Amino acid sequence: MSEVKGYAATSELSGLAPFQFQRRAPRPDDVSIEIEYCGVCHTDIHFAANDWGRTNYPVVPGHEIIGRVTAVGNDVNQFTVGQRVGVGCMVDSCRQCASCDQGLEQYCREGMTPTYNGVDRHDGERTFGGYSDSIVVSERFVVSVPDALDPATAAPILCAGITTYSPLKHFGVGKGHKVGVIGMGGLGHMGVKFARALGAEVTLFTRSQSKEAEARKQGADHVIISTDPEQMAAATERFDFLLDTIPVPHDLNPYLQTLAVNGAHILVGLIEPIDPTVHSRNLIGKRRILTGSLIGGMPETQEVLDFCAEHGIECDIEMLDIRNINEAYERMKKGDVKYRFVIDMKTLNNA
Amino acid sequence: MSEVKGYAATSELSGLAPFQFQRRAPRPDDVSIEIEYCGVCHTDIHFAANDWGRTNYPVVPGHEIIGRVTAVGNDVNQFTVGQRVGVGCMVDSCRQCASCDQGLEQYCREGMTPTYNGVDRHDGERTFGGYSDSIVVSERFVVSVPDALDPATAAPILCAGITTYSPLKHFGVGKGHKVGVIGMGGLGHMGVKFARALGAEVTLFTRSQSKEAEARKQGADHVIISTDPEQMAAATERFDFLLDTIPVPHDLNPYLQTLAVNGAHILVGLIEPIDPTVHSRNLIGKRRILTGSLIGGMPETQEVLDFCAEHGIECDIEMLDIRNINEAYERMKKGDVKYRFVIDMKTLNNA
Repeated sequence: MSEVKGYAATSELSGLAPFQFQRRAPRPDDVSIEIEYCGVCHTDIHFAANDWGRTNYPVVPGHEIIGRVTAVGNDVNQFTVGQRVGVGCMVDSCRQCASCDQGLEQYCREGMTPTYNGVDRHDGERTFGGYSDSIVVSERFVVSVPDALDPATAAPILCAGITTYSPLKHFGVGKGHKVGVIGMGGLGHMGVKFARALGAEVTLFTRSQSKEAEARKQGADHVIISTDPEQMAAATERFDFLLDTIPVPHDLNPYLQTLAVNGAHILVGLIEPIDPTVHSRNLIGKRRILTGSLIGGMPETQEVLDFCAEHGIECDIEMLDIRNINEAYERMKKGDVKYRFVIDMKTLNNA
Repeated sequence: MSEVKGYAATSELSGLAPFQFQRRAPRPDDVSIEIEYCGVCHTDIHFAANDWGRTNYPVVPGHEIIGRVTAVGNDVNQFTVGQRVGVGCMVDSCRQCASCDQGLEQYCREGMTPTYNGVDRHDGERTFGGYSDSIVVSERFVVSVPDALDPATAAPILCAGITTYSPLKHFGVGKGHKVGVIGMGGLGHMGVKFARALGAEVTLFTRSQSKEAEARKQGADHVIISTDPEQMAAATERFDFLLDTIPVPHDLNPYLQTLAVNGAHILVGLIEPIDPTVHSRNLIGKRRILTGSLIGGMPETQEVLDFCAEHGIECDIEMLDIRNINEAYERMKKGDVKYRFVIDMKTLNNA
């Protein structure tokens, strides 16, 4: 066991504060990592505040982790000490089901082990995330970070990036396709970059005229103001794919109507607490698809990092001192960040 | 113009009664058809009673039409007098959009012209359906009925058949797949037959234990009683496809949970008036698809007739004297028909 320094929420109202805890002694297949950067995901806020009613306190959030290998177990083959690596939303799975066999560990039949607020399958201990100075993770759930990537801007690729990349790849987005990205936050701005890099014509749907210039800067060819019924009507049957990054209740039906025959509306943000009501005629009448996608498997998480290195894609970030994490959460709730906070973990030393 | 004998509803409360009306003089691309048989679809009941608020009275229902060619226009190439032919749910479309170009006339950008309760695109006259002794239809929307098919049992293939066949083909159902068919009425029993003929392992979901023996007779390998939570739970993540033929409000979520990763829940019955609420986690958590499908295009309507001839598939029908049509509607509302009424149009002579 080793003593670890981090930040945790200890109750629904506590906010985040410095927290000392134990990490397990490394097992033979484990990689020990000194954390350099950790992205801040909306999910972290929900777990810290127990918005979904399933938080076990104390919780150490963080699942967009970049760091350096400090030690490897005897069975580790792919990683060496000093190498830069990443850890995303999961740290284990059953490794035996059909999904795991296909490298789709996120859809593990028994459920993946989340990077935080989970329970280790082997020792029954709780998992703690990346708002900390180090982590120990089984080799299968560690990815290599290409040298060409800036380690800080790469951190959000581990969640915001893979979550938007995976469905675009799975559903075959490419040249000649018209893709609509709904919402431009951490996920949405990455979705715009990926869709464009894959060769598609990209339109951003946003409620706010003020985001138009920014959307074009990110690579959007067109912008539709989703609150303008005329703009929405003019887009009827235009798109092959919609990548819907909005994690709060919204009416899907006006968006569905902008899909062409055989078009697919892909949800990547869990819509809670209110689920969408879908007019069946909007699906049946044009053979449209409503679907969803959850992060990505480990092979694809490696793939997206390599893709980003090859195409020069990085997440737009604002660097954060961990001592300001509670203020950062408040700003994120107001959408006041372009587009992801990334914690510089060296600041833990001052905490 | 020619005088036609049929049955129509003239108001919401009238029921159906004998009705004389005019058909257009044939145009050069028209096929004139003497109707031998017409299937009775649930949609007919809804239009006769104006359940959907879009009936223009008088309405002559009927879109599962089988008959003999009595005349062809000068531009007709594929049909000759005396040939047995079929007409389904549509009699025209724009013929110019991307969907029409692909033989997906049912998804026509401008909307297909329905066989009844529609408006002819050329002369602006109303369309009247197959509860009548004859019909005039443009060649493109007429299909050939193979000699091997019994003309009466073939009639429902024009709607119940193509509606279930098309999505199974489009989504690639075949050997090695597990298909669940939800509901066993006119559509459901055809879905079971097609899924089996395509090589899939077929399970029927039904609320009623009493349908189990019948489902197995139709070709189902397994039966799940959908009102039994234990049976539903035991089927978690089992199916690759669900063909959902239930046209009334029902909770989709328990069915979605029986889909494996990447599985597709296909709606073929418009769910009205209440639309389904979908828990987004049931889609996102396993990358499942909720979709829908509307009848089929003209090339595929010909294909399904040929497929039925090749595989000896026919609809289970009860032959109906048109004078008993109102009684038949009452029985259909109670689900009391195995599985489709087909009107013997010779009985019009006695009406």
